[in-house]
Amino acid sequence: MESKIDELDGEFITTEPDVLAAYRYDQAGFCEAGKPAALARPRHTDDVVKVLRFAHEHRIPVVPQGARTGLAGGANAVDGAILLSLERMDQILDVDEINQTATVQPGVINSVLSRAVADQGLFYPPDPGSWESSTIGGNVATNAGGLCCVKYGVTSDFVRALEVVLADGRVLRTGHRTVKGVAGYDLARLFTGSEGTLGVITEVTVALRPLAEKPLTAIAFFTTSAAACTAVTEYLRGGRRPSVLEFMDKPSVDAVSAYRDLGFPEDVGAVLIAQSDRGAAAPEDLQAFADAARECGATEVIVASDQAEADLLIEARRLVGVAMERLGSRLVDDVCVPRSRLAELIEGIAAIAAEHEVLIPCCGHAGDGNIHPNVVFDAADPDSVRRGQAAFSAVMALGLRLGGTISGEHGVGTLKRSWLETELGEVGVSVHQAVKQAFDPRGILNPGKVIRSAPGRVPG
Amino acid sequence: MESKIDELDGEFITTEPDVLAAYRYDQAGFCEAGKPAALARPRHTDDVVKVLRFAHEHRIPVVPQGARTGLAGGANAVDGAILLSLERMDQILDVDEINQTATVQPGVINSVLSRAVADQGLFYPPDPGSWESSTIGGNVATNAGGLCCVKYGVTSDFVRALEVVLADGRVLRTGHRTVKGVAGYDLARLFTGSEGTLGVITEVTVALRPLAEKPLTAIAFFTTSAAACTAVTEYLRGGRRPSVLEFMDKPSVDAVSAYRDLGFPEDVGAVLIAQSDRGAAAPEDLQAFADAARECGATEVIVASDQAEADLLIEARRLVGVAMERLGSRLVDDVCVPRSRLAELIEGIAAIAAEHEVLIPCCGHAGDGNIHPNVVFDAADPDSVRRGQAAFSAVMALGLRLGGTISGEHGVGTLKRSWLETELGEVGVSVHQAVKQAFDPRGILNPGKVIRSAPGRVPG
Repeated sequence: MESKIDELDGEFITTEPDVLAAYRYDQAGFCEAGKPAALARPRHTDDVVKVLRFAHEHRIPVVPQGARTGLAGGANAVDGAILLSLERMDQILDVDEINQTATVQPGVINSVLSRAVADQGLFYPPDPGSWESSTIGGNVATNAGGLCCVKYGVTSDFVRALEVVLADGRVLRTGHRTVKGVAGYDLARLFTGSEGTLGVITEVTVALRPLAEKPLTAIAFFTTSAAACTAVTEYLRGGRRPSVLEFMDKPSVDAVSAYRDLGFPEDVGAVLIAQSDRGAAAPEDLQAFADAARECGATEVIVASDQAEADLLIEARRLVGVAMERLGSRLVDDVCVPRSRLAELIEGIAAIAAEHEVLIPCCGHAGDGNIHPNVVFDAADPDSVRRGQAAFSAVMALGLRLGGTISGEHGVGTLKRSWLETELGEVGVSVHQAVKQAFDPRGILNPGKVIRSAPGRVPG
Repeated sequence: MESKIDELDGEFITTEPDVLAAYRYDQAGFCEAGKPAALARPRHTDDVVKVLRFAHEHRIPVVPQGARTGLAGGANAVDGAILLSLERMDQILDVDEINQTATVQPGVINSVLSRAVADQGLFYPPDPGSWESSTIGGNVATNAGGLCCVKYGVTSDFVRALEVVLADGRVLRTGHRTVKGVAGYDLARLFTGSEGTLGVITEVTVALRPLAEKPLTAIAFFTTSAAACTAVTEYLRGGRRPSVLEFMDKPSVDAVSAYRDLGFPEDVGAVLIAQSDRGAAAPEDLQAFADAARECGATEVIVASDQAEADLLIEARRLVGVAMERLGSRLVDDVCVPRSRLAELIEGIAAIAAEHEVLIPCCGHAGDGNIHPNVVFDAADPDSVRRGQAAFSAVMALGLRLGGTISGEHGVGTLKRSWLETELGEVGVSVHQAVKQAFDPRGILNPGKVIRSAPGRVPG
């Protein structure tokens, strides 16, 4: 294998062991990584073509990587693979103010794009937690979500056109730069969220929107999670479209408060944080939020009086991850259920936490029914690890029982591959394998991620 | 072949020649239809399974049909085929007010669903011109658009989950009922717009929105199409999101005025019709529209003073099709270009009309850059037919040159299959064929539509 890799020369290829080691993992817990053979960091589509042609000819696995901020092991190395990092393809190629689109290379950081288009009065809404470090290519490959999705939709809602290098090195341009287009199958959408298993994304055209008004922000405090969940459905059934509607349960609030004093009341049972970016109509939106919250038993609702206070409230939500890391190791789950089942989900997770004797703080995008239960455990204690993993699985089983999905935005990778099979069922798995086979007959693209190869087919 | 068909019994099957004849065509011009062997009108998914299993075993082509309102021949019969009409699967299975979704059988008429959910304060936005007769299944299979798309998006933006009977009769449930979901490939989106070539849709779960406010409507009159097109981009770059933004050129206005007196001024060069459904903010939106229109040279802008007047303006736009039919035979084109190229498109089409000595009135969804040039010709005059077809092709070539697509919402069917190959390019065609092969290895699903079978493969 290694002698073959040596034939793939170019200044963008390295086999330096220390460098390879640094690129083996994304940010998922409990996901194995193999030993890669090389790292390619191309600057041009032509170089990606070169890597894929070589890999295809020699049946060498290729693992595409963005910023490796994923939480499901999707970017982890596999044995003998060429790691194909797109981070150096980081140019914004075009921002089109009239047509409200941007065309970028895959390595452009989400926040870099967001700020660049904001300078032109435009808005790129998808804002995953990793937005300051994750790349547009990675966001597309995983169909990343974020806080704004409740109003604006997820990454796939903004993908117009893609350039993709196929498994055999051919370059496909697909999708359309126009607002609408029905000429042929929606391959751009098929690649979006396919986690590098169907092709390597080398250019992305995204839709933009006019820059929204600065949002108004409010927080509501509840004594129970159930009350907060009911407030979510009551608020949204009234027809409002908040630009953010986030939930934190008691263990999340406690963890964040222990990390940084936010001046929250004592004994908070749950909070909702809502924003409206409808300008002059925002106060009315937040009044409706406050009314719904109070009707559902909120003990207090506060509307931020200035930007600093608003930033603090959103910061409280964004701090959950950091605050949680002080409590122990964590496995971040990502179930999404119909909104009407949110209360059952949160209560069921509390029961799972009690049964497995682990802490599972829950926070997430309540307006979308998308919750991130953080299973916290002691990595040094094998029994705690076992209980943590059992709880992690139990949460997904609960999500499916409630009519939901095992992943709202983090993806499958290797972490949830067997759970994906449960969700898809036998026919679904078989169709996925047929699609994978059509795009990657030699099984070289991110093998072992998302979907197992069909029985009898040898990947790599 | 016919003796085989006889083995497929069931009260939902007919081989009655008169009935078959009535189901041979959709509403496309210039699209051949073959001679079908049977018509199946199932009421249950189980019956669809029965048809597909039989067809798969005997390699008989199957042509799925909704209301046959399509404009590209996608539902036209092929020789020896079983026509599979889903019109009797017309039940609304569930409207979920809290989660804002509806689950329906494919034969539910768009307007029936729209009105049913409106009764519960909910809104199903996709509103193709055929909305009073076309089915949700057909809308999904063609990814139908409509007037509201400029604000709300097209059918695929509302498809959450599908039940699909695969070519071999297996039943796939795909997508998710939740707002978000990234568990596996986005197959629901892949089936959407695939025109019955990848599977037969037997159940659809769509997202709904809260019912919008009654819109305010305005019309602006211009002396030239170019001025109207500039007003479109100027209005939208200001950040407004109209719920309708329609364009009619002079020949369209003249045709409609000849059909029904709308009280329009004399010598109108082009009109824009705009709506805003933002309630209290609607007058401000239309003021911005009026300002942009006047800055771009509008001679007059009128805001409808009541619902009747508003209805009349939208009616003017919806009458284009009917009014056109009095002028001769027509071929409806459907190009979509980046908004910034709209003026060039309209001017180029006028030049094409002059060159080929045909009339090509243009109207369409200006906010989306999606225009319907209606090529009008005399079907009894072979030379006129030839010139009409040449003009039709020239319009698509122009759309592609301007960075657009050959179809914004009507689809490919047989009408535009060779043009699709031009748009996709060699790699795109090959990937389409691989996807088709993965889903339909025996080539029985709507053969010859959208994409040619791969060379060397025998369809049917």
